[in-house]
Amino acid sequence: MIRETVMEDLIRLYHGAGGVEMRELLTKIFFKRLEDKLKRYKDGLGIDHPDDGAAIKISEDLYMVISTDSYTVKPIFFPGGDIGKLAVSGSLNDVLMMGAKPIALMDSIIVEEGFSTQDLVKIVDSMFEILREENIPLIGGDFKVMPRGEIDKIVINTVGIGLANKLIIDSIKPGDKIIVSDYVGDHGAVIMLYRFGLDKDPDIISKSKLRSDVKPLTKLMIPLIDKYIDHIHAARDPTRGGLAGVLNEWVSDTELGIIVDEEEIPVRESVKKYSNMLGIEPLYLASEGVAILSVDPSVAEEILRFVRSLGFANARIIGEVVEEERFKGRVILRTSVGGLRILEPPRGEIVPRIC
Amino acid sequence: MIRETVMEDLIRLYHGAGGVEMRELLTKIFFKRLEDKLKRYKDGLGIDHPDDGAAIKISEDLYMVISTDSYTVKPIFFPGGDIGKLAVSGSLNDVLMMGAKPIALMDSIIVEEGFSTQDLVKIVDSMFEILREENIPLIGGDFKVMPRGEIDKIVINTVGIGLANKLIIDSIKPGDKIIVSDYVGDHGAVIMLYRFGLDKDPDIISKSKLRSDVKPLTKLMIPLIDKYIDHIHAARDPTRGGLAGVLNEWVSDTELGIIVDEEEIPVRESVKKYSNMLGIEPLYLASEGVAILSVDPSVAEEILRFVRSLGFANARIIGEVVEEERFKGRVILRTSVGGLRILEPPRGEIVPRIC
Repeated sequence: MIRETVMEDLIRLYHGAGGVEMRELLTKIFFKRLEDKLKRYKDGLGIDHPDDGAAIKISEDLYMVISTDSYTVKPIFFPGGDIGKLAVSGSLNDVLMMGAKPIALMDSIIVEEGFSTQDLVKIVDSMFEILREENIPLIGGDFKVMPRGEIDKIVINTVGIGLANKLIIDSIKPGDKIIVSDYVGDHGAVIMLYRFGLDKDPDIISKSKLRSDVKPLTKLMIPLIDKYIDHIHAARDPTRGGLAGVLNEWVSDTELGIIVDEEEIPVRESVKKYSNMLGIEPLYLASEGVAILSVDPSVAEEILRFVRSLGFANARIIGEVVEEERFKGRVILRTSVGGLRILEPPRGEIVPRIC
Repeated sequence: MIRETVMEDLIRLYHGAGGVEMRELLTKIFFKRLEDKLKRYKDGLGIDHPDDGAAIKISEDLYMVISTDSYTVKPIFFPGGDIGKLAVSGSLNDVLMMGAKPIALMDSIIVEEGFSTQDLVKIVDSMFEILREENIPLIGGDFKVMPRGEIDKIVINTVGIGLANKLIIDSIKPGDKIIVSDYVGDHGAVIMLYRFGLDKDPDIISKSKLRSDVKPLTKLMIPLIDKYIDHIHAARDPTRGGLAGVLNEWVSDTELGIIVDEEEIPVRESVKKYSNMLGIEPLYLASEGVAILSVDPSVAEEILRFVRSLGFANARIIGEVVEEERFKGRVILRTSVGGLRILEPPRGEIVPRIC
């Protein structure tokens, strides 16, 4: 999947967008240049595995899962959340998507000189609110201040720590059904509206009722892990690159393809409308509180019912994994009129600092 | 030790300098406001323990130690190292100072749009160089790009992961001897010269032969952990706030004091000279490859010889822990003429972005 291209002289925004260009850059500067033995700890999962976290085997059936993510979202306060809620939820979700139950969190905050202490307290409160609800201890952290103008307001890194008896290692299997737990793209759509200045129109956010979907997915994933871990072949939260990004990563470097029914993908009318207005495909928009699962077909309907019973009423089976030469390594969208089109991996940058 | 003050409206540079003001701020917005059960994982060490990392108990005599740190150093390339070497060394050292042997590292890099790819490769190469030498896998990470002007060049967060059979939990004991493994303040002095523009004088850096001391302390700490873990009551690398910062943190909230002999503290002549020139006390300057230990007096000389035999020829015993009411909670400097003066905890900011 990775084309051999000359490395560009300068880092561009799209190198951080979670798409094709980022994967190319990271492959060149990290994955290819590090010997295999330096890519994972013994029989854990490491950086050679294209996932959000790493796993360290600590006993025969116990892994410690650790994820790290830097959050740079702009605006830092948005409908549905703020950078603090995003950072904590995001790291908990990364841990959950690997099949682990979160046990602790660490943070590292960099603030711009002159930042409002009150805003910092608001952000830390959002972090605490989630930690309290989820009963997750914040066990350590770092705090730095950079001079005015050297960083835009605040950046938060969070480290999610969890324990798993079995890992979900994102290896889809032929026949698997693809389940989406909720509407996709809400977070990306909200940030996009702000970044395009559409929040200035007093009606557009309130009328559309658009809010970021940012939330921890413990209530969904812990019951799923307990009951169906053996049947979940892949799980991801579609952040940068959206649903299209996750599905394309899953098929990349495999003999498999994924066919999804466009009509079955839950996208809010308002997200569709503003995406169309801005010429953006909503399937590339980030979600921050949605899970995509690839599950064994024998229990797919049962899992779907279970997911809905957990309060995720908009969950859907949106497609399946196929083993056909013509679809190999591709994600195919079956459109409402029955046509097939390729859903390309994300490329370029819709808006920077989405998460 | 924490004075009750009104919280300032705006975040200042000194809030990130590792001194009194930072501790006050973090106490107010983190430590005090989080219930105790959310401060640590079961019987591990957490954010309630003023150290660089956290520890999670995974079995009767095994802890996983995790540290997180964001590196914002400016300049990003400096004599003796760069931000990549600093980030990897710093996180390995944080893990070592808790009594753990590093087993893995994760990174999260934020780069400014337009940053030179070649410089990024140089920085990543520095990271790999240390990882290879230390045989530590880089098991996962994150990569983000922020638009031009929204972050100054590059910021790196690293997560150090290690295993410890017994933790060093920084509880000094009366009679303990304080050992310093090497000259202190070299890193801080180099960054300070740059930040005050003294690197523009073509001779000053080369003449002074000043180089950052940044390095991982595995060759020192792993043998010490193996042989003397039961006799080491506290261990720290004196980064932000320097030697004065570490010693003051150790005595804070205790009945104990520390007396150090000024003459015994190894400080290079050039560091003294430029510190004097700039009106700065070198004992507040950061080191990035030095360990401060508080050890049982019965084996202090033996440990000192052992440390020297490991290649740390400048190691010294610089003082001791005392239990005297008049010294309680204080660090006292015994000057060369025999006078006593208080070495105050660090306050304010010497230069921002030292690490």
